[in-house]
Amino acid sequence: MEIGRVVGNIWATKKDVNLNGQKLLVLKIIKAHEEEREDYLVAADIVGAGAGDLVLVSHGSAARYAVGNAKAPIDTAIVGIIDSIEIDDK
Amino acid sequence: MEIGRVVGNIWATKKDVNLNGQKLLVLKIIKAHEEEREDYLVAADIVGAGAGDLVLVSHGSAARYAVGNAKAPIDTAIVGIIDSIEIDDK
Amino acid sequence: MEIGRVVGNIWATKKDVNLNGQKLLVLKIIKAHEEEREDYLVAADIVGAGAGDLVLVSHGSAARYAVGNAKAPIDTAIVGIIDSIEIDDK
Amino acid sequence: MEIGRVVGNIWATKKDVNLNGQKLLVLKIIKAHEEEREDYLVAADIVGAGAGDLVLVSHGSAARYAVGNAKAPIDTAIVGIIDSIEIDDK
Amino acid sequence: MEIGRVVGNIWATKKDVNLNGQKLLVLKIIKAHEEEREDYLVAADIVGAGAGDLVLVSHGSAARYAVGNAKAPIDTAIVGIIDSIEIDDK
Repeated sequence: MEIGRVVGNIWATKKDVNLNGQKLLVLKIIKAHEEEREDYLVAADIVGAGAGDLVLVSHGSAARYAVGNAKAPIDTAIVGIIDSIEIDDK
Repeated sequence: MEIGRVVGNIWATKKDVNLNGQKLLVLKIIKAHEEEREDYLVAADIVGAGAGDLVLVSHGSAARYAVGNAKAPIDTAIVGIIDSIEIDDK
Repeated sequence: MEIGRVVGNIWATKKDVNLNGQKLLVLKIIKAHEEEREDYLVAADIVGAGAGDLVLVSHGSAARYAVGNAKAPIDTAIVGIIDSIEIDDK
Repeated sequence: MEIGRVVGNIWATKKDVNLNGQKLLVLKIIKAHEEEREDYLVAADIVGAGAGDLVLVSHGSAARYAVGNAKAPIDTAIVGIIDSIEIDDK
Repeated sequence: MEIGRVVGNIWATKKDVNLNGQKLLVLKIIKAHEEEREDYLVAADIVGAGAGDLVLVSHGSAARYAVGNAKAPIDTAIVGIIDSIEIDDK
């Protein structure tokens, strides 16, 4: 999993029927030392995350298991809201 | 998922039989701030996207679920046409 | 999927038994504007591609579906020979 | 698999129910010559690793098999604690 | 698949039980023109490869099929020893 930060919302009316009812959020992945990767990702949110939240992000088939619909065409999911991170990187 | 922009069409007469009838489009992935990655991707389109459209792109096994043929050798699919994106990136 | 160009052949006598009979080709992935990525990939070919051909390349589990052997340890396959690409990238 | 080094802990109270009871650790991937990639990864730990340990890291669906819960939304797992590495790189 | 070169050995006593009996090797991926990527990978070897061998490397779920244990937490496998590569890259 990776550490992400929610940065926005996205709307798509015309979409795969298995995306109906899925809340989609835009996020950026955090690299070490609080830098962020410049790419946007779009993830299904199953934990009620909001703008600015640090979140745990799963990729690939793991994301489909998170949303509880094995046929949803989803490859990225927010699977947790991060309370704290403790780095001990000597 | 990632955010893509449709930039072209591609034709292949000689192909895997499970690609017959699949509409394939060429796209580029959008990075933050409307820049684009320089690589081309080829995606199966299930939502009727056209040149210039901003689209939602799924990768890996998720793409096969989108096209409704679990045996299609497809690893990238356009699963939505994006109406709007709202970035709140402080 | 990605766009590749066939650049060579590869031989391996000692190999997984599920690779027997698979034709393997070496290719490079095309980036935008006809540049190529510098990495080599090795792909199973199911469409009769040859040196110099532009081809459609699938990755991951999609590649196994292409070769028709769900147990073959194959993660990359050539699934089409490209006739033409039309880019309209304003 | 890749070689990682455990660099921290992470806590998430609000999370997918299939993550309950999973110990999650933050790690960095080792590149050649003991350099490290700058990105953080979050992995499920099944072998009792601790801060500073060199570990064997599996990605993708392999990670779910490691945790013994095929429905857990996990894409990265620590599957071994490395005792020693012997490089003979002429 | 990618082309790799075996550069070392790795030992892990404490590990996932499905890794028992798996021979693990450290390798580097070959880019074009005999350069190598700087990252190390760890792969399960099913073909008896040794230090310095050029090998065919499969990633993802394909690697699990190679080792013949669908539950092994393995995402990289050596599936062939390369005899020769012929590049015709005009």
